[in-house]
Formats: sequence, structure tokens, C-alpha cells
Amino acid sequence: MKPNLQPWGSDLLELYSEIWKRLTFGILDRHAPARHPTLATATAEGRPKARTVVLRAADKVAGTLDIHTDLRSAKVGELRATPFAALHVWDPLAHLQLRIEAQVTLLAGQDAAEMWKAVPAASRLSYGSSPAPGEPIPQALDYTKAADAGSFVVLRLRVDTLEALYLGQNHCRARFDRSDAWTGTWLAP
Amino acid sequence: MKPNLQPWGSDLLELYSEIWKRLTFGILDRHAPARHPTLATATAEGRPKARTVVLRAADKVAGTLDIHTDLRSAKVGELRATPFAALHVWDPLAHLQLRIEAQVTLLAGQDAAEMWKAVPAASRLSYGSSPAPGEPIPQALDYTKAADAGSFVVLRLRVDTLEALYLGQNHCRARFDRSDAWTGTWLAP
Repeated sequence: MKPNLQPWGSDLLELYSEIWKRLTFGILDRHAPARHPTLATATAEGRPKARTVVLRAADKVAGTLDIHTDLRSAKVGELRATPFAALHVWDPLAHLQLRIEAQVTLLAGQDAAEMWKAVPAASRLSYGSSPAPGEPIPQALDYTKAADAGSFVVLRLRVDTLEALYLGQNHCRARFDRSDAWTGTWLAP
Repeated sequence: MKPNLQPWGSDLLELYSEIWKRLTFGILDRHAPARHPTLATATAEGRPKARTVVLRAADKVAGTLDIHTDLRSAKVGELRATPFAALHVWDPLAHLQLRIEAQVTLLAGQDAAEMWKAVPAASRLSYGSSPAPGEPIPQALDYTKAADAGSFVVLRLRVDTLEALYLGQNHCRARFDRSDAWTGTWLAP
């Protein structure tokens, strides 16, 4: 029986390229699955947290991914305590799951000034709302938006491992490590 | 200006019902966003991990959600070390994010026997493959599937908090806690 794999699903090098292609789609196309990954962090007490984020940059050569957020959001506090994140993309049409593990650096103030300049005016209103994200409010819309460069932070994820799990007729799973120069290995799914 | 909210987006009680309705869709409809949530766990070292899972049961009255997995998978080891999980659903059409935090109990062997009986024969092959999930293999398809009741485990999530974030024209965010009898509160988004 011929294995029912995607063309890129049977060769590690092609699969690695396909993963970064799909991550890059997330930057270019607001409807691509990689546009809205799930970012998992851990609290200082070691408890997992997860939320949707927007992928803002993907650099295959450096192996980095960028996310923008409000400096006052809970995830920033969590990343200060534990600077590791898992980023997760589920592509339902491709039946493909991407699991990324990374070390996270927070870039704010002068370190984020150039990136802040590139944020469209309307989008800047996402950084600096009042009260701060997560604060209780009496009614659903009892908050105001404001653009505040001082509330803007870039989460730069330096990818350590990248895992792909293809959940078609025949599942297949591969893992790529920075420490192994991304050569990759197949894993039992 | 009339707030651009979903009908269920301006009332906490309706929103809470809507959340459970959407979780239940995940059990009934394999194409519903809640069918494939992201499960985040933390390792013994406090590092976050995330992967796609399939939602198998949702009980609004008890406030529990079930996931089935292989007893040898890494997440089982992580949950033994840290029995807390974050479960995350992103519904792109509704612009709705669900964030769930829960304590997890592992049900295996006799405790899972009734549930194992209800798993269709074809699906049982997902529990008991060889080598174990995550083991390196020479080629993508160098593994065999087998149904093994001894490898079957139910992750029962006892929900502690449930958060909804609606990302339409006007963002709104609410949080519901078991300790507060699920009455809910609005949060700044």
C-alpha cells in the first residue's frame, strides 16, 4: 500500500522547509493558521498558561519568531520568571500540527523602537489600554484604548526545537533541533 | 455607537452558556474548533509544553472535560509531575478564544475500562503503537499500530477557571471561576 503522505511529508529536509514556509504564511496572510498560534508559558509556580497570539515575524536563518504584546500582560510576568515558551500551530486543512519550543527575550523601550515605528497606527491602540489587560471591570466595554510605546514589547522566540506531526491517514512525526543543526529525526507518532 | 458584540457577548450568564455550548460542539462535530484544543502542560522543571488533543467529553454540570491519550506519551509524565493543564480553543470564525485552566486526574486500567469499551475499534489503534510515542525511528512510517487497553488513559480535567476573549470590533473578555460558582466577571481585554 502506498503511504498516504503529503509530498513534503516523507523527506526531512523538505519537511523542515515546509514548516518555515507555513510559519512565514502566518506573517503574510491573516487567514493562515500560523497567523494565530497558541503561546504556552509557565508561571513561577510551574503552572501552564496558554493564549492565542499573532505571529509578527519569522526568520528561518536565525531561527526566531516575533510576537508583540502589552508589557503589562500576565504572559510578560510569566516569561520574566521562566523565559521558555511553547508555540503551537494547528492547521486543520493540512492535518498538520507544529510544536515549537523556544527561549524568549523581551525587547522593550529602545530595543523595540524600530519595530514600534513599523506598527500601523490602528494596531498601536492594542498597546496601552486602560485599565491594564486582565484587570476586572464593571461592564464588558469599560475600558479605553490608547497607543503607548512604553507598553509595547516584542517577545523574540529563539527556537530550540521544532516538531511536526502530520495527522493524515498515516501519521508521521519529525523533530528538528537547533543543537543538531536542524537535521531532524523521525519519531514514532 | 452601538457596541459590535455577539448577542451572547454582553451578558455573563449567556456567555457562560455559549462557552459550554461550543465545548459540547467539539464532542458532537469533528469540524468544530473545540474538537481540537491545544493542551498545555508543564514539565517537572517548569517548562511549558503544548500539543493538539481531541476533546472527548464535556460535562457542564460537573465542570469537567475528557481527553484520551497513550499512557506512554510525554504529557502523561508531565501531568504526573504537575497535575495542572491549560486547555485552549481558538474559534477563528467567531473570533473567540477560550482559555481553560484545570486540575487533571489520570484514569487508567479499571478506572477507564467503561470508556475503553466505548472507543470504536479503529480508534483503539491509537493507543498501543510500537515503538512508544516520541521514540526515534529510522523512517517516517517505521511503526506499527495496535489496540492495547493497557496503554489507554483518560485525562479528566476538572475546570477551575474559564476565560473567554472575544476579538471582534470591540474586544471583550470575561472570566468564570469554580470558586465563585461560575458567576463571572468582565476583565479589561
